[in-house]
Amino acid sequence: MTAIETIRWVGDLEGRLELIDQTLLPTEFRMIECRDVGTVHEAIKTLRVRGAPAIGIAAAYGVCLGVQPLVNGDEGRFFARLEEVVGHLAGSRPTAVNLFWALERMKRAAAACRGRKSPREIAGALLAEAIAIHEEDRRICRAIGRQGAELLSDGQGVLTHCNAGGLATADYGTALAVVFAAVERGKRIHVYADETRPLLQGARLTTWELQQRGIPVTLICDSMAAQVMREGRVQATITGADRIAANGDTANKIGTYGVALAAAAHKIPFYIAAPQSSFDLALPTGEGIPIEQRDPREITHGFGCQTAPNGIDVYNPAFDVTPAGLITALICEKGVIRPVSKERIAEVLLSDR
Amino acid sequence: MTAIETIRWVGDLEGRLELIDQTLLPTEFRMIECRDVGTVHEAIKTLRVRGAPAIGIAAAYGVCLGVQPLVNGDEGRFFARLEEVVGHLAGSRPTAVNLFWALERMKRAAAACRGRKSPREIAGALLAEAIAIHEEDRRICRAIGRQGAELLSDGQGVLTHCNAGGLATADYGTALAVVFAAVERGKRIHVYADETRPLLQGARLTTWELQQRGIPVTLICDSMAAQVMREGRVQATITGADRIAANGDTANKIGTYGVALAAAAHKIPFYIAAPQSSFDLALPTGEGIPIEQRDPREITHGFGCQTAPNGIDVYNPAFDVTPAGLITALICEKGVIRPVSKERIAEVLLSDR
Repeated sequence: MTAIETIRWVGDLEGRLELIDQTLLPTEFRMIECRDVGTVHEAIKTLRVRGAPAIGIAAAYGVCLGVQPLVNGDEGRFFARLEEVVGHLAGSRPTAVNLFWALERMKRAAAACRGRKSPREIAGALLAEAIAIHEEDRRICRAIGRQGAELLSDGQGVLTHCNAGGLATADYGTALAVVFAAVERGKRIHVYADETRPLLQGARLTTWELQQRGIPVTLICDSMAAQVMREGRVQATITGADRIAANGDTANKIGTYGVALAAAAHKIPFYIAAPQSSFDLALPTGEGIPIEQRDPREITHGFGCQTAPNGIDVYNPAFDVTPAGLITALICEKGVIRPVSKERIAEVLLSDR
Repeated sequence: MTAIETIRWVGDLEGRLELIDQTLLPTEFRMIECRDVGTVHEAIKTLRVRGAPAIGIAAAYGVCLGVQPLVNGDEGRFFARLEEVVGHLAGSRPTAVNLFWALERMKRAAAACRGRKSPREIAGALLAEAIAIHEEDRRICRAIGRQGAELLSDGQGVLTHCNAGGLATADYGTALAVVFAAVERGKRIHVYADETRPLLQGARLTTWELQQRGIPVTLICDSMAAQVMREGRVQATITGADRIAANGDTANKIGTYGVALAAAAHKIPFYIAAPQSSFDLALPTGEGIPIEQRDPREITHGFGCQTAPNGIDVYNPAFDVTPAGLITALICEKGVIRPVSKERIAEVLLSDR
């Protein structure tokens, strides 16, 4: 199955970043051009590009755009600019750890050249690193699919929340990679996609990706997930992740926790699929994960008209944390982590597989 | 606390029905005039009037409008028309039992006059019956509030789903009646209102009612309810009901079941408040409750613009059934039914209180 090209770098050191503007899907498909770091920051903040792995990749390329004006200057100014650019991008969204992980890699790549190479050469090393992050993510998506495909059986209904597909990654996704890989192995899978309020990534993006690939998909409201489980329509649930603590507690799109509770009540397996870069082993538990609070207007003025009274108080957390105890297995490129425990996570992630 | 006048009959036997058009709230407040049964049928079907008790009242007045053209004719034609009108209104929505209960009362009121009174007198008896249903509901709302108020404590956060307030009844609601009554007794209550996709009755109506009355309310998406519970923001959940089976299984707005599962997982009491007319003792369990399936466009084109790809498959049940085992107590005008069991329900409902 071929991937959707969500993110692409066009040209060389003086090149530009192109992104699918995901806020326009599914009614309009348009690529946006990013020629400076401000445009990338805005694209991440407003969810034109979203999904933890895709945010990391876009930020890495954002660093390349940010240093472009200084490739012919002196080293001191180049590194000052690099710090500024990294700080700016790090402030775009607080929850997805891949963002910080990618920016850290970029800084390390530059630091390794310091005092030995010209700013132009360092910019070249940064672009190479961004391309490497991008390429690695392609391979990781395929590996996650391969690792997880065995967990799904022919004829199953699979419920997913938000979008953890090709649009969220460099290739064919994390949660959806497992579905795609199962379908590639000849299994018939019917996906139930939660619409995922407030920003409707499920309604707008997951359904679109699956439709493009001819995989049967039924759209439901988030409030219908428990009922769909009760009616026996789904036999597995699978989502992506924005950050996974050392003990397996997982931050993902708001609503994931409710899906996990409903799955547990119906004895339906609840899987999380995510690359190693989404794990934050420095955090012992999910308690320490910062939860982004977003604009109330996403709820009150979601899609073209006002749906709540003027002046109403709104609570709009972008993520929730699902405790490890509700997660049947974590699927990453290195394997299936089951049971979900600190020891088993460390064992799989730190292995040389 | 005064009630919102959601439904009113204006004039005598030749009068008309006026309803708040709830599809326009909260940005526009407009009454619609119903001068024939077709307009009432359309108003129920399209949710201009909604909420199980309000549907029953509107349908009762709809019968009066339906027979208006025949008050000067012969009895045979009058009763044929009555049957036709009742059948038409009964087909407007399948789940709320109050609709059938109110229509049954109207038929009985007419039947009691048959052979003894003129069509004009029977029409008068029908209008008197509709007014009685309307008046009774006012008293029932107050009684439900009184019965339930003791279940809420000062300083509590209370989560509700959909709208079971004044807009759903003749007075100040069922679920919200409990909140209003608690506030009248000096308790400080903070309501968390689920927006209630797809038709956003929580965002549009519940927030509006509470705001009108100065009760603190925070709007959340349905997918946030479990997280709000986890954060300790709510200590009780309360909703209305569309139909309650003899064993306590309860059909209510889609998403109620998920709220009940999340409440159970957090050991938060889950209450249902509903009049006796919402109980269907002829149904042994919730298995027998028909679940209305609604137009996919409510999900794909909900907010004034298209939010899902063309041609996507959609599942849109309007209700779900919460099993009795998840319900801490049922609150009706006759008392608090706890534990929720067939025996206890029969005992309270069939008592002479």
